[in-house]
Amino acid sequence: MELHELLERVRTGELKVEEAEGLLRRAPFDDLGYAKLDLHRQIRSGFPEVVYCAGKAQAHLLSIFETLYEKNGRVLGTRASAEQAALVRSRIPSARYDPISCILKAGETQEPLRGSIVVCSAGTADIPVAEEAAQTAEFFGRQVERVYDVGVSGLHRLLSRLDTLQSAHCIIAVAGMEGALASVIGGLVSCPVIAVPTSVGYGANLGGVSALLTMINSCANGVGVVNIDNGYGAGYLASQIDRLAER
Amino acid sequence: MELHELLERVRTGELKVEEAEGLLRRAPFDDLGYAKLDLHRQIRSGFPEVVYCAGKAQAHLLSIFETLYEKNGRVLGTRASAEQAALVRSRIPSARYDPISCILKAGETQEPLRGSIVVCSAGTADIPVAEEAAQTAEFFGRQVERVYDVGVSGLHRLLSRLDTLQSAHCIIAVAGMEGALASVIGGLVSCPVIAVPTSVGYGANLGGVSALLTMINSCANGVGVVNIDNGYGAGYLASQIDRLAER
Amino acid sequence: MELHELLERVRTGELKVEEAEGLLRRAPFDDLGYAKLDLHRQIRSGFPEVVYCAGKAQAHLLSIFETLYEKNGRVLGTRASAEQAALVRSRIPSARYDPISCILKAGETQEPLRGSIVVCSAGTADIPVAEEAAQTAEFFGRQVERVYDVGVSGLHRLLSRLDTLQSAHCIIAVAGMEGALASVIGGLVSCPVIAVPTSVGYGANLGGVSALLTMINSCANGVGVVNIDNGYGAGYLASQIDRLAER
Amino acid sequence: MELHELLERVRTGELKVEEAEGLLRRAPFDDLGYAKLDLHRQIRSGFPEVVYCAGKAQAHLLSIFETLYEKNGRVLGTRASAEQAALVRSRIPSARYDPISCILKAGETQEPLRGSIVVCSAGTADIPVAEEAAQTAEFFGRQVERVYDVGVSGLHRLLSRLDTLQSAHCIIAVAGMEGALASVIGGLVSCPVIAVPTSVGYGANLGGVSALLTMINSCANGVGVVNIDNGYGAGYLASQIDRLAER
Amino acid sequence: MELHELLERVRTGELKVEEAEGLLRRAPFDDLGYAKLDLHRQIRSGFPEVVYCAGKAQAHLLSIFETLYEKNGRVLGTRASAEQAALVRSRIPSARYDPISCILKAGETQEPLRGSIVVCSAGTADIPVAEEAAQTAEFFGRQVERVYDVGVSGLHRLLSRLDTLQSAHCIIAVAGMEGALASVIGGLVSCPVIAVPTSVGYGANLGGVSALLTMINSCANGVGVVNIDNGYGAGYLASQIDRLAER
Amino acid sequence: MELHELLERVRTGELKVEEAEGLLRRAPFDDLGYAKLDLHRQIRSGFPEVVYCAGKAQAHLLSIFETLYEKNGRVLGTRASAEQAALVRSRIPSARYDPISCILKAGETQEPLRGSIVVCSAGTADIPVAEEAAQTAEFFGRQVERVYDVGVSGLHRLLSRLDTLQSAHCIIAVAGMEGALASVIGGLVSCPVIAVPTSVGYGANLGGVSALLTMINSCANGVGVVNIDNGYGAGYLASQIDRLAER
Amino acid sequence: MELHELLERVRTGELKVEEAEGLLRRAPFDDLGYAKLDLHRQIRSGFPEVVYCAGKAQAHLLSIFETLYEKNGRVLGTRASAEQAALVRSRIPSARYDPISCILKAGETQEPLRGSIVVCSAGTADIPVAEEAAQTAEFFGRQVERVYDVGVSGLHRLLSRLDTLQSAHCIIAVAGMEGALASVIGGLVSCPVIAVPTSVGYGANLGGVSALLTMINSCANGVGVVNIDNGYGAGYLASQIDRLAER
Amino acid sequence: MELHELLERVRTGELKVEEAEGLLRRAPFDDLGYAKLDLHRQIRSGFPEVVYCAGKAQAHLLSIFETLYEKNGRVLGTRASAEQAALVRSRIPSARYDPISCILKAGETQEPLRGSIVVCSAGTADIPVAEEAAQTAEFFGRQVERVYDVGVSGLHRLLSRLDTLQSAHCIIAVAGMEGALASVIGGLVSCPVIAVPTSVGYGANLGGVSALLTMINSCANGVGVVNIDNGYGAGYLASQIDRLAER
Repeated sequence: MELHELLERVRTGELKVEEAEGLLRRAPFDDLGYAKLDLHRQIRSGFPEVVYCAGKAQAHLLSIFETLYEKNGRVLGTRASAEQAALVRSRIPSARYDPISCILKAGETQEPLRGSIVVCSAGTADIPVAEEAAQTAEFFGRQVERVYDVGVSGLHRLLSRLDTLQSAHCIIAVAGMEGALASVIGGLVSCPVIAVPTSVGYGANLGGVSALLTMINSCANGVGVVNIDNGYGAGYLASQIDRLAER
Repeated sequence: MELHELLERVRTGELKVEEAEGLLRRAPFDDLGYAKLDLHRQIRSGFPEVVYCAGKAQAHLLSIFETLYEKNGRVLGTRASAEQAALVRSRIPSARYDPISCILKAGETQEPLRGSIVVCSAGTADIPVAEEAAQTAEFFGRQVERVYDVGVSGLHRLLSRLDTLQSAHCIIAVAGMEGALASVIGGLVSCPVIAVPTSVGYGANLGGVSALLTMINSCANGVGVVNIDNGYGAGYLASQIDRLAER
Repeated sequence: MELHELLERVRTGELKVEEAEGLLRRAPFDDLGYAKLDLHRQIRSGFPEVVYCAGKAQAHLLSIFETLYEKNGRVLGTRASAEQAALVRSRIPSARYDPISCILKAGETQEPLRGSIVVCSAGTADIPVAEEAAQTAEFFGRQVERVYDVGVSGLHRLLSRLDTLQSAHCIIAVAGMEGALASVIGGLVSCPVIAVPTSVGYGANLGGVSALLTMINSCANGVGVVNIDNGYGAGYLASQIDRLAER
Repeated sequence: MELHELLERVRTGELKVEEAEGLLRRAPFDDLGYAKLDLHRQIRSGFPEVVYCAGKAQAHLLSIFETLYEKNGRVLGTRASAEQAALVRSRIPSARYDPISCILKAGETQEPLRGSIVVCSAGTADIPVAEEAAQTAEFFGRQVERVYDVGVSGLHRLLSRLDTLQSAHCIIAVAGMEGALASVIGGLVSCPVIAVPTSVGYGANLGGVSALLTMINSCANGVGVVNIDNGYGAGYLASQIDRLAER
Repeated sequence: MELHELLERVRTGELKVEEAEGLLRRAPFDDLGYAKLDLHRQIRSGFPEVVYCAGKAQAHLLSIFETLYEKNGRVLGTRASAEQAALVRSRIPSARYDPISCILKAGETQEPLRGSIVVCSAGTADIPVAEEAAQTAEFFGRQVERVYDVGVSGLHRLLSRLDTLQSAHCIIAVAGMEGALASVIGGLVSCPVIAVPTSVGYGANLGGVSALLTMINSCANGVGVVNIDNGYGAGYLASQIDRLAER
Repeated sequence: MELHELLERVRTGELKVEEAEGLLRRAPFDDLGYAKLDLHRQIRSGFPEVVYCAGKAQAHLLSIFETLYEKNGRVLGTRASAEQAALVRSRIPSARYDPISCILKAGETQEPLRGSIVVCSAGTADIPVAEEAAQTAEFFGRQVERVYDVGVSGLHRLLSRLDTLQSAHCIIAVAGMEGALASVIGGLVSCPVIAVPTSVGYGANLGGVSALLTMINSCANGVGVVNIDNGYGAGYLASQIDRLAER
Repeated sequence: MELHELLERVRTGELKVEEAEGLLRRAPFDDLGYAKLDLHRQIRSGFPEVVYCAGKAQAHLLSIFETLYEKNGRVLGTRASAEQAALVRSRIPSARYDPISCILKAGETQEPLRGSIVVCSAGTADIPVAEEAAQTAEFFGRQVERVYDVGVSGLHRLLSRLDTLQSAHCIIAVAGMEGALASVIGGLVSCPVIAVPTSVGYGANLGGVSALLTMINSCANGVGVVNIDNGYGAGYLASQIDRLAER
Repeated sequence: MELHELLERVRTGELKVEEAEGLLRRAPFDDLGYAKLDLHRQIRSGFPEVVYCAGKAQAHLLSIFETLYEKNGRVLGTRASAEQAALVRSRIPSARYDPISCILKAGETQEPLRGSIVVCSAGTADIPVAEEAAQTAEFFGRQVERVYDVGVSGLHRLLSRLDTLQSAHCIIAVAGMEGALASVIGGLVSCPVIAVPTSVGYGANLGGVSALLTMINSCANGVGVVNIDNGYGAGYLASQIDRLAER
């Protein structure tokens, strides 16, 4: 019984107040339109769903892509393999695949991009993660500027882009190895910095844990950290912040 | 030689172009107004300096407090001991000390608080860190609502404050032990969540590392993490975000 | 507005169905008797609240003890210091303190103990944790048999108590150092074994992490693990299991 | 010499008391029917043996499956590969293989399923482990309800199944990434919760150690933890508990 | 009922064979003289019990020391504090305390020391652990030669004692910091080497874990490792080996 | 210049004492017959060289095998792949390969095996490592008894072999998962126990580190530990001990 | 606008002092010839760029090799695969590939090698890393002596090369497993030692972390450590030191 | 018998060549003047001995200080406590104690300081370690420039000292928290950088391990790392390098 119907029956006397009370109390979560609550969250968030492709079965992946494409007119998939891309393109020929970031996209939006997010990467090997972040934010309607290959061992590269950094609403700093980029950027700007450690490196990088610790211990203020290689998560969080800045 | 003077001398011919070029190249960082650049950052950030009291020598602490109090009319010190508080109050009698959060404050601001930050804590033992976050944000002019003792083992406590959570610009989630609070909140709201792991717990909590890992691996979107027990850092980052929301 | 009143108003037409629907949807968590839901959990669990004393402020501890003593006629406090015990006894003179397990108890129950839990400890140094487990279960009305100092380096001590072990509903195995006790017991009995690693040991015991890993990797079936030194948690879980066995 | 025969000979005087005493003391373990003791354990446990297929040589696997199938009329194999499934089916054509849970089953039981275990999974990627737990429990004669994809980042999904959760004898909570599901469920129910961390996730999930730590540090009462990805172990332990509840 | 009596009754017909069989099967471990088995182990091992003093309650410690002193004529206590030493000496005035190794000894043996164990320490800070090893072995009747302060950063110190090393039955190598001593000794001798990592050092020594890893990964053959700072364990194991060499 | 020649020249006056002194001081290590010292070690150790095959280049492996086979009449290779075995057998057709232990052997010895080593394994999956240990010891002329599949979750299996265990000179305990076997054996016997953790297991076994920690923290006396999966190292160390016992 | 031109315009009055000041202040990093600053660093360092081949795309790798070959007349690539080598050789036929060190070189220098670096390796399995170090230093014009297979388990091998070690300006010590080599060398020489842990080993070597910890905790003075398997980094640092020694 | 005497006797025929050969071979390490070899090392190193005071017994400390003071005319003690300082000053009144660096010095040298070492610290809390490094280098006769409080969160502070950095022979970079300073400096200079992680920080700094990992993973070339808080070790290594630069 839908909530509306239940209340309707209370109004008409078909259902006693005590009975209605019991029903509502016993199952407060499912009968009260929680799917809708969830829908509210979707609506409120304003962010279309993104597909994490890695490990998804073929049939499952196809079905999700087609459903979302139909519903939203566009879809973004992260961590897609070349095989998955080919599969999806057999159904959605307009889909495009970027083998570096492993992003698979279909559809366009007419909405102009807004806001100001800067995505920095320390080295070229960090670009796949940086692109995942950048394209996620763009998919969410955000305007993104890329500042790549500005690791701290060649500081002038970063400093030469200071103007760009200082005009952003939010900066995503992507770095592997020792992950010092986030601290340096944090000290140069006054906007929030989302730090993304990557698994780039070897030996004592411990699969990215070393860069993660560096960023968590940052001596700079205003740095929040997401999981290793989690470009998507950084793009999401930065988009939330950038959207706030725009209100 | 000041930059202005240098250029003046170039103009008048007192200094040859080549000499000026050499001077500028040789010392690009100190002579070109870097102090000002830094000053700009202070001015732009709008956030008065906060004093990390732990481990500071008495004379040093007193001098910093007095200088900042004189300059800004108010000071905030974090992680102050009762002894440090007594010491500062011998000079600045109006200073107040909160033994729970270990925050030592002096001075007031007439500026009305603005924006909307919610600080949640999982347990009562996490309140010291939560208060450090909350009072830091208030010191930076942000309006803060406290939602304490809403750990996930009693979900109704958290859910009963859903309205408050959903109306925030930014939420700080402070939790020790298993640190699950950030994920649950992240799934309930659409604003950024700053997660602060605490060292509360024992045994396999590894001094807070367990909660840190939980938060970094959060299955919810929109969660950025700061260091263990770093209430100040969370308050700073949340204030940056909240300020953006207000522009 | 209470749920009953809301529905009443719907019935009388004072409140439109749509308005009521909106109210219910907007705040499903707080107005629908969540406190009661929680209360239900308390009632259903049948377990009176236990006080974790460590780190509690004096006034807070006293107030909790007095409130629970008044409400339930008895209280159990874990990890109490001798000072806390003296403090509580100044108000509740009948309270008794056990300096080994750091348990502080007040009040008695007339209810006969029921069920069958066996608490084993590997060494004498593990007894504080074992007692925390045992006394917690007894506080929850469970009958507990203690089998202490039966570490695996002297197997005959354990084997001589095989009858006791094999007649239990649930066994709590408390061990530090290498923590092998749980695996050995798991192989000897067919009831659930709750394993409690302790921080007893030194060097590579890593504060109990070594025993924790041993227990988590147990080659025996039917072993569930709780946190290091978490006697209370083991007593709680064993009591839940033992109570089920009795239904 | 069998124990019975030995005693018979003592009775008839064929064997002196001292000689019998010596024999019994010298070899207490093998001559006293330990195989039987072990058999007792098998009989008492009531749980037929389950085959861990991973890494078993082909001949070995076939022989174990055939022996158990002949003896018990049915067999359950965990972590079987598709190749192993094909191999077994070449001999036991009625065997069925589930590529998701990697479970290989042969034979049926007429016994009605009894009891009440609920298996929850946080995400769809955790389903293989959850199914291993569920099918293990079913193989042991337990009635299992599946509640999948109820991770804490979308709390309404879990809360909508609250009735199911609260009516269980025992709940298995399977979760990777940050593993918060166990704590949330632990706070909602009064029965024991068996927590299974999974290796699902990436980066700082450390192959499941992060989820393991989360669960071990759970702020909820009544949570016992098994090894990472150990669905079988959880199914076993839950079956022991569920069986107790039924006595 | 003793085993002897049971068999006697079987012989006399007082006890039926089936009854006796049941009794023996039901309690195979306790009634069959397991205490004796244990006693056998004590007798066979030939090593008097050693007292681990740390953390023992005063009354308990005194009672153990007095009992063992009475029974064996001598006692060895490890990790005793100065307070514990004073306490024991108030009852056993002849007891001697060594504040460096924290060993507390009472009584003498007339037995000449036998065998050949060499105890090496890398630095002077490792001597407390080395002495615990050496005095344990001496208490067990072994002849011990000390070769201290022969760390690998001054190789000539070690090499100048090569003859001593090469004539031993067993060598104990005690080292903190990087713990390289065991590998170097292992390469110089052909007898077993017992490696004892110590917690000496700071920073990345991780409380001795670094030295433990070094020793476990030793590139030399014939090295077995015990726990960090476990001089007693090394002394015990070396004594077992040395005793074998003497048979 | 050889030492003999140098001294000869001193004797004849061709070389001044001071010059000779300088030469000896400057290069004390190379000219004094260190190769011989090393040779002494080979001769003294009595153990023929064993080949670690993993990762060796084909030509290198062949040459080592042929050289040792020619010199010693027999060779033992550990961790050989099937390909390496085929390669070696193309040159030494009598070589035999055991795919379980990955041991590749050529040649026989007429020497009777001596001494008494017992090799125990916890599970069947630990047998490869156990065999590496056993065959290494046999290659070194030691008599080895195998006691396999005696893990602590079925204690009667181990206890039924108690006589075998108690009559050994040295026991090698090989176990993965929680690695409790070494502690249990250590408590049952009075000879040295060499504990070998294996990487068998999954999840929180951390590639064998968990079993390693268990063994290092053993509550039993007389246990020395070698590296994870290091069957060869255990066989070597046990052979040294067994040989001592025989003198 | 170039700095020179800017100043020229100030001199001629084309640009006002205030305007120039503004330009210089606003963009101090890019307009002031930072590329040149960087160039200065290149020139000053005197070290030609080295290519890290692993993971580079084919087109990218080719282009870098060709550019550097053209510019410098020679190139050094580290961690090149056989495929990458073949690719590069299809364009630069004179390039040579060393499959052991995975170094790919093209071009020669006429400059005589200078200075004195000694590269030591503990085992033959460490040679790939040692060669990366040695060939990097040679590429930078340094004279290198190799002292391989001198691990501490056979000390005479190392000591026989003492003269070589003691005459170096800088020593690179490459070792896996327990990594003790650096400490031993550090105690024998008075020049700086660069320690390179390698991932050679298994089990508790933790992928090289164990050797890293050993070297960081070295009891010898004068030891600096680089990342696991980082032969290039050690070669670079040693070349810097060796070059200093030569001035 | 001294080496000289031995050779003398060979010359005079008192000792046969064969006898001398035997003596030299049998005891190559002790009889050949290894103390002298060691002395050579002392003489060659040119660095007077430094005293690590922490944990030294009073009598021991006094005796070492007095001996070295007498022998060398000056002494340097690191990690001295105020009590130790008072003790030493009771005997050597001219000794001076610095409570920040915990350095205790006695005596002066007339030798002018030479060379060029720069010691940088990230924060003021790192100064104790930085001073230990600086004063160690000065004690070894090196000229040291201090550049303190130049952490990467305020890059202009570091850049303003670029000239100083770029003119050094060797730089010591001391940093806690995230430890990024070493990478940034490594990218700005062409001389060797000795990185010293400190334990400054909290939470996920893991007692300095985080900074250590950062430095070991440095993306900059020319960085060698020493142990956490090991200012002395950095000072020693830098002095070795600086001395080489001066030859």
